[in-house]
Amino acid sequence: MPDSHIAKHAQPSGDALRQSLATRFQKARGRTAELAAPLSPEDLMVQSVPDGAPAKWHLAHTTWLFETTVLVPDSPGYRPFDSAFLDLFAARSDRFGNHQLPSPTLRLLSRPSGAEVMRYRDHVNAAVLHLLAQVDDAGLAEVADRVEVGIAHERRHQERMLTHIKHAFWSNPLRPAYEQPPQVYPTAPQPQDWIAHEGGLVEIGRADAGPGFDHEGPRHRVYLNPFRLASQPVSCGEYLTFVEEGGYSNRALWLADGWELARSENWQAPLYWEWRDGAWQIFTLYGMRPLDPAEPVCHVSWYEADAFARWAGKRLPSEAEWETLGARCESMGNLLGTGYRHPRACPCHGEGPWQMFGDIWEWTLSPFAPYPGYRLPDGVDEAVHGRFMINRMVLRGGSCVTPFDHANPTTRHYLRPDTRLSFTGIRLAEDA
Amino acid sequence: MPDSHIAKHAQPSGDALRQSLATRFQKARGRTAELAAPLSPEDLMVQSVPDGAPAKWHLAHTTWLFETTVLVPDSPGYRPFDSAFLDLFAARSDRFGNHQLPSPTLRLLSRPSGAEVMRYRDHVNAAVLHLLAQVDDAGLAEVADRVEVGIAHERRHQERMLTHIKHAFWSNPLRPAYEQPPQVYPTAPQPQDWIAHEGGLVEIGRADAGPGFDHEGPRHRVYLNPFRLASQPVSCGEYLTFVEEGGYSNRALWLADGWELARSENWQAPLYWEWRDGAWQIFTLYGMRPLDPAEPVCHVSWYEADAFARWAGKRLPSEAEWETLGARCESMGNLLGTGYRHPRACPCHGEGPWQMFGDIWEWTLSPFAPYPGYRLPDGVDEAVHGRFMINRMVLRGGSCVTPFDHANPTTRHYLRPDTRLSFTGIRLAEDA
Amino acid sequence: MPDSHIAKHAQPSGDALRQSLATRFQKARGRTAELAAPLSPEDLMVQSVPDGAPAKWHLAHTTWLFETTVLVPDSPGYRPFDSAFLDLFAARSDRFGNHQLPSPTLRLLSRPSGAEVMRYRDHVNAAVLHLLAQVDDAGLAEVADRVEVGIAHERRHQERMLTHIKHAFWSNPLRPAYEQPPQVYPTAPQPQDWIAHEGGLVEIGRADAGPGFDHEGPRHRVYLNPFRLASQPVSCGEYLTFVEEGGYSNRALWLADGWELARSENWQAPLYWEWRDGAWQIFTLYGMRPLDPAEPVCHVSWYEADAFARWAGKRLPSEAEWETLGARCESMGNLLGTGYRHPRACPCHGEGPWQMFGDIWEWTLSPFAPYPGYRLPDGVDEAVHGRFMINRMVLRGGSCVTPFDHANPTTRHYLRPDTRLSFTGIRLAEDA
Amino acid sequence: MPDSHIAKHAQPSGDALRQSLATRFQKARGRTAELAAPLSPEDLMVQSVPDGAPAKWHLAHTTWLFETTVLVPDSPGYRPFDSAFLDLFAARSDRFGNHQLPSPTLRLLSRPSGAEVMRYRDHVNAAVLHLLAQVDDAGLAEVADRVEVGIAHERRHQERMLTHIKHAFWSNPLRPAYEQPPQVYPTAPQPQDWIAHEGGLVEIGRADAGPGFDHEGPRHRVYLNPFRLASQPVSCGEYLTFVEEGGYSNRALWLADGWELARSENWQAPLYWEWRDGAWQIFTLYGMRPLDPAEPVCHVSWYEADAFARWAGKRLPSEAEWETLGARCESMGNLLGTGYRHPRACPCHGEGPWQMFGDIWEWTLSPFAPYPGYRLPDGVDEAVHGRFMINRMVLRGGSCVTPFDHANPTTRHYLRPDTRLSFTGIRLAEDA
Repeated sequence: MPDSHIAKHAQPSGDALRQSLATRFQKARGRTAELAAPLSPEDLMVQSVPDGAPAKWHLAHTTWLFETTVLVPDSPGYRPFDSAFLDLFAARSDRFGNHQLPSPTLRLLSRPSGAEVMRYRDHVNAAVLHLLAQVDDAGLAEVADRVEVGIAHERRHQERMLTHIKHAFWSNPLRPAYEQPPQVYPTAPQPQDWIAHEGGLVEIGRADAGPGFDHEGPRHRVYLNPFRLASQPVSCGEYLTFVEEGGYSNRALWLADGWELARSENWQAPLYWEWRDGAWQIFTLYGMRPLDPAEPVCHVSWYEADAFARWAGKRLPSEAEWETLGARCESMGNLLGTGYRHPRACPCHGEGPWQMFGDIWEWTLSPFAPYPGYRLPDGVDEAVHGRFMINRMVLRGGSCVTPFDHANPTTRHYLRPDTRLSFTGIRLAEDA
Repeated sequence: MPDSHIAKHAQPSGDALRQSLATRFQKARGRTAELAAPLSPEDLMVQSVPDGAPAKWHLAHTTWLFETTVLVPDSPGYRPFDSAFLDLFAARSDRFGNHQLPSPTLRLLSRPSGAEVMRYRDHVNAAVLHLLAQVDDAGLAEVADRVEVGIAHERRHQERMLTHIKHAFWSNPLRPAYEQPPQVYPTAPQPQDWIAHEGGLVEIGRADAGPGFDHEGPRHRVYLNPFRLASQPVSCGEYLTFVEEGGYSNRALWLADGWELARSENWQAPLYWEWRDGAWQIFTLYGMRPLDPAEPVCHVSWYEADAFARWAGKRLPSEAEWETLGARCESMGNLLGTGYRHPRACPCHGEGPWQMFGDIWEWTLSPFAPYPGYRLPDGVDEAVHGRFMINRMVLRGGSCVTPFDHANPTTRHYLRPDTRLSFTGIRLAEDA
Repeated sequence: MPDSHIAKHAQPSGDALRQSLATRFQKARGRTAELAAPLSPEDLMVQSVPDGAPAKWHLAHTTWLFETTVLVPDSPGYRPFDSAFLDLFAARSDRFGNHQLPSPTLRLLSRPSGAEVMRYRDHVNAAVLHLLAQVDDAGLAEVADRVEVGIAHERRHQERMLTHIKHAFWSNPLRPAYEQPPQVYPTAPQPQDWIAHEGGLVEIGRADAGPGFDHEGPRHRVYLNPFRLASQPVSCGEYLTFVEEGGYSNRALWLADGWELARSENWQAPLYWEWRDGAWQIFTLYGMRPLDPAEPVCHVSWYEADAFARWAGKRLPSEAEWETLGARCESMGNLLGTGYRHPRACPCHGEGPWQMFGDIWEWTLSPFAPYPGYRLPDGVDEAVHGRFMINRMVLRGGSCVTPFDHANPTTRHYLRPDTRLSFTGIRLAEDA
Repeated sequence: MPDSHIAKHAQPSGDALRQSLATRFQKARGRTAELAAPLSPEDLMVQSVPDGAPAKWHLAHTTWLFETTVLVPDSPGYRPFDSAFLDLFAARSDRFGNHQLPSPTLRLLSRPSGAEVMRYRDHVNAAVLHLLAQVDDAGLAEVADRVEVGIAHERRHQERMLTHIKHAFWSNPLRPAYEQPPQVYPTAPQPQDWIAHEGGLVEIGRADAGPGFDHEGPRHRVYLNPFRLASQPVSCGEYLTFVEEGGYSNRALWLADGWELARSENWQAPLYWEWRDGAWQIFTLYGMRPLDPAEPVCHVSWYEADAFARWAGKRLPSEAEWETLGARCESMGNLLGTGYRHPRACPCHGEGPWQMFGDIWEWTLSPFAPYPGYRLPDGVDEAVHGRFMINRMVLRGGSCVTPFDHANPTTRHYLRPDTRLSFTGIRLAEDA
């Protein structure tokens, strides 16, 4: 079980904490820069989804958070890199996914240039590291808390940045690749297996649901009926059968809202699937590739996941079912740190379930709602996840572009049921 | 505990069943005609909400269902009243709340006239009663099933018809009244009280979730933490304090989606509240009236119910909590049969909770999702509630325009969280 | 040449003026009531075009104008029929074709009933006639001016009311007829002929362009090249050839804006043409009828008229060309007073051009722009036509639902080039 | 009188024609590159108006035209720079201002890079010059025609490119400048003067209205009443008085459509005027600057120009009036070649009218309609201006970003009356 977040709550001495924070800060910031490295100044400008943002904005906005929440309040004598940036890259708006600047404006920021934004990053990085080295023990705790929030924020934007870049590149008729694929070795697909659970009262949720994790607690009891969970995600090959057998035109398989959307948008397959010259291809961060039946299917909406499960005679798992077996799972799948920017077929060893963490976010049948005993914190902090506990469904696991420490058994990701932009896939369940 | 639906599943002899069905059919059909009686031919035409329908359409469409599902298949020699009506009043569309005719066309049907639609009703009524009298024992069961579905359908449209008429009359600057209020005697408001429950494993859901009730089963176990439920709904007076203390402009009280909607629609109070000459008035089926602080507040969206509860330091109940106490509740509130077309202050006697059934539908914090073990029936029957198990919230109880036998402890009503058109109100809960 | 408007500017004695006004008032008001007679209370409610209005509103609004501009200011002791109507039926808004009440509200006015609106008309009629009988010579001129404006307003609404009712009835799947057709005798179609004009300096425009006619003056000189004008409007048969030879799919025939609209709305024929069972039918105020090739085509937009003319190797006339020949034309076509509510094939006798006045409004290639020397009157009177001198094209002549005295050689009617709702058709011209 | 287009129709010998074409080609292409020089790779990406295009697209699309209409058909053995560009930069769509790629896609083309597009330009430039040097006399005429069309096309896009860049830079909150202003010397404003014309029959229009100029012919007679034309455009100072005296809130000054638009968009001043710190500033290609009262006002819609004229007690000129005096005008204003990218106050010498050509496009009261005798050429050539002869108003003169040879007395520019994006201003006229 991944437990990356434990470090945060241990109590190291001041120097050890300074050192650990500096390392974590540098790693997170460096990873973002590394992810932006394949992008040209022009690539940094593109924005193809209304609620998205150009990579340049992600690079600047994550920097702005450190500048305004760490440096300006805590670092005496700090001079902002450019006072105009304090407004330009802010996100204090009323609308989720929106920004102080109206979203359509973000893609018009040819100035500042990409190079200047990288200088902005360097300037702020140096100032944060300097602060961490200089802050006295009395001030350290507060600085540490804010830096931690900034690091978590930075990591969330890494996933969003790649998600947006993928869509933007796909929107270019040239279908450019984000980068060249690393060498990988094919794996022999394993047959689907079913992991049984006897049901009964279980406990789920995060015991220490601090800032950034409010929506994952409190830990609480849930009663489960006996069930079985699939050992692996649904593969492209399995999903292709659903497509070929008319899944998208069989209304009996769909909930009413999903059917209406699928018809009005004329969905025929997952996002990024394209029928070319008599065969399915899919667009990836490595460009167009033939569909690989062994890979997990991804970029499906909740409606498609639900319809597929019904077609297969199964259902989606509840989040409590998922977490109960996820907590036992010892293996990791393909996450951001792995460096492979697409879901992979499972190299399954030992006992399943496999790939619970990594490759794809897994839709559950659980609406995103408060756990028993949850209370929204006071105030209007944008970062409080509880503010979004309506109209969204819970996903579990983590995808191939999710940072390692965001993929825990208790992690609750949440999306509207109509979205297909993220690396979202399916793991089936059934009543025992 | 109301158990009106039990009759349906008992096994009376053929004649008794014929008699009972005929009576129930006549009552349901007569009630609809009675509800339409105060409406002029022109009133029958008005439609003010895009997803709504004019009363004339409700009158004809409910008739159409009996004609096409009972008479045409089962009554040898039956001649349709007007073959054009078979298409005109059908509802076989893909869109929920929509119809074979595009919704905007419904309000253009000046022909057939209201008088002709009433003749259509009479024609079909006579033919159904004739069929019930004549059908032999072999065919009775199937006819009975279809008639029952038609009756349930008729009753649902009674509630919708009054809901739509209320909005249409409110949209007329003259604010006409639907009818004159009956004489009622004021009741002394009782103080709010809290009914405690110790939590633990409970059972909820309908054991016999047949056609029309698929979404209310299966019966299943749920684990509850200890909680308390308010003895009465939130009153207009309590809600007025929320309004006056700036509830609608305090973002900290609202979930993100609700805040955005409330701002963009400039909500300042529940639907039908109007500030006139220095005082709040509300529009009712009896016309404009001064706000009565003792009445239950109604016509609030889920977002408002949720924000109010947060302001009050409480929360909405889960549907399992509601049902657990609702099943113990012995008193009924004001339902359609009572004849008072507006929520009333509670004439509370004995022990609470009071008004669990009637006056207002009560929002819960439970998204409308399948119970464990629920499976969508095969086929594409529009009447299957499970098709709508996404993007909606559960309401419990029943309102002042809900037919008696639709208000059971297990009844799951469901609406999108943004709607304020129905008679929807609030009952608070809290953790013990 | 029709000269109905001359009476207005003659100077009869007071009594003769009183008498003439009373007669004209009664005729105009009676005509409206006669046109509404075939409509049921429910028919009076229907409104199928966003900028349109239900017949009930036309009946009440024309009455409101007399009440508020004649009776309230000029008739001492007059008591309004219902003070709420002063707001309810007003039209003082900023938007053309719109009203003080938002347009969607008009169709919700089930109250007042149609019967009450007719009583409102009677009440105001009696009061106006009483005023005309009583007003002294000093006040007569002002009263007469206002009554004249009201009569012209009433007549304009007669045309609009029939136009709206036609569309509303066509929107009902039952396609009801407004009334039964009178007996008519078929006419032998005449071959198209061309009336030549030598060109040169001509004079057009109304010399006395008083209130209600501001846009028709000043009279001014225009230089014309030699041209020829068609003796008759384009017939349905000629237009059918255009349709059958692919006129609607030949982009070379269309201006860019027209092509884009025709494609996006998928136009295949004029409004009200329907292909049923292998033949074209058209919807008329007499219900569905087989297309009659001899009738003038109508319900075409300017884009279609322009494309048809190009296909025919001709062009539309300019309004100066039209008026120059129209002023010589001595015969009248089918107007509102004729009582035939559809364009008729020409019963041409003597020398053409024929049907310049009546049957169809004829599109010209002249944008609706000010004549040289025209100046917008001061103030913000809604009735000033000059306010609309942009984005519209001029039509000449008058249609089968145009009152007689609105169809003069100088009459400038104007519509946006995309509209097909009015009885609009085509007369061709060509360079000599 | 500027007569730049005469060169085209002279008959030089083959070599002289080759030389002259090559020079003109190089000048036009070089000018575009020069205009793009101040733009960074990122600036080349921005697109802020839906119907606009990024500068990169203008650079590539003008190149594409030479490649596909000159090189591919006429240059044996020519190899396209990149076959994907043949589709990527095409403009063959149905919608004016639109492109084969949906307009929103244009701004997503981070690949090809700006540098690659400049290489594309170089490649095509060399190939065209090579072709011009090599083509034999037999083929020269056709090549010359096509190159001329390409040059005219290139020049039109120069104006559009600067128009779009100005809006895009203004949409960036940093309000970057396109370039640094050249040194200019202030001029003493001259008082407004009025040039009289006696009226009568005049001739206007282009005698040789060949390809690219179809809409400017045929030459024809028009009758004019006596009139006077202002010697100079309306200045910012004059317009400021209109603003300060409530011109934008006085409905009596506006046509109905203009008033509705101005209210719904909340116009308070021309586009690019901003009220900052108690004073008006305007955004220019040189960044934000204090409003200069002596400069011609620009970026006004036709509605504003018309309302201003009414407020001033004047009117807009007709295009015939404008051309009649414009043909006598010997001085030029500030055009693209001048190098000053903003309208300038008039350095008026000698007799007026002044600045008829240059600084601002001048709205007329003439709708864009065919001249008498005009006939749309056969076929569906996008470049035929006659296809747009509806819904637009004529502008005359030319602006500070109009190439010299597009600013002739007969030039008819045309825009929808609601647009404010172009450098559009006002010259007044009045009846004598």
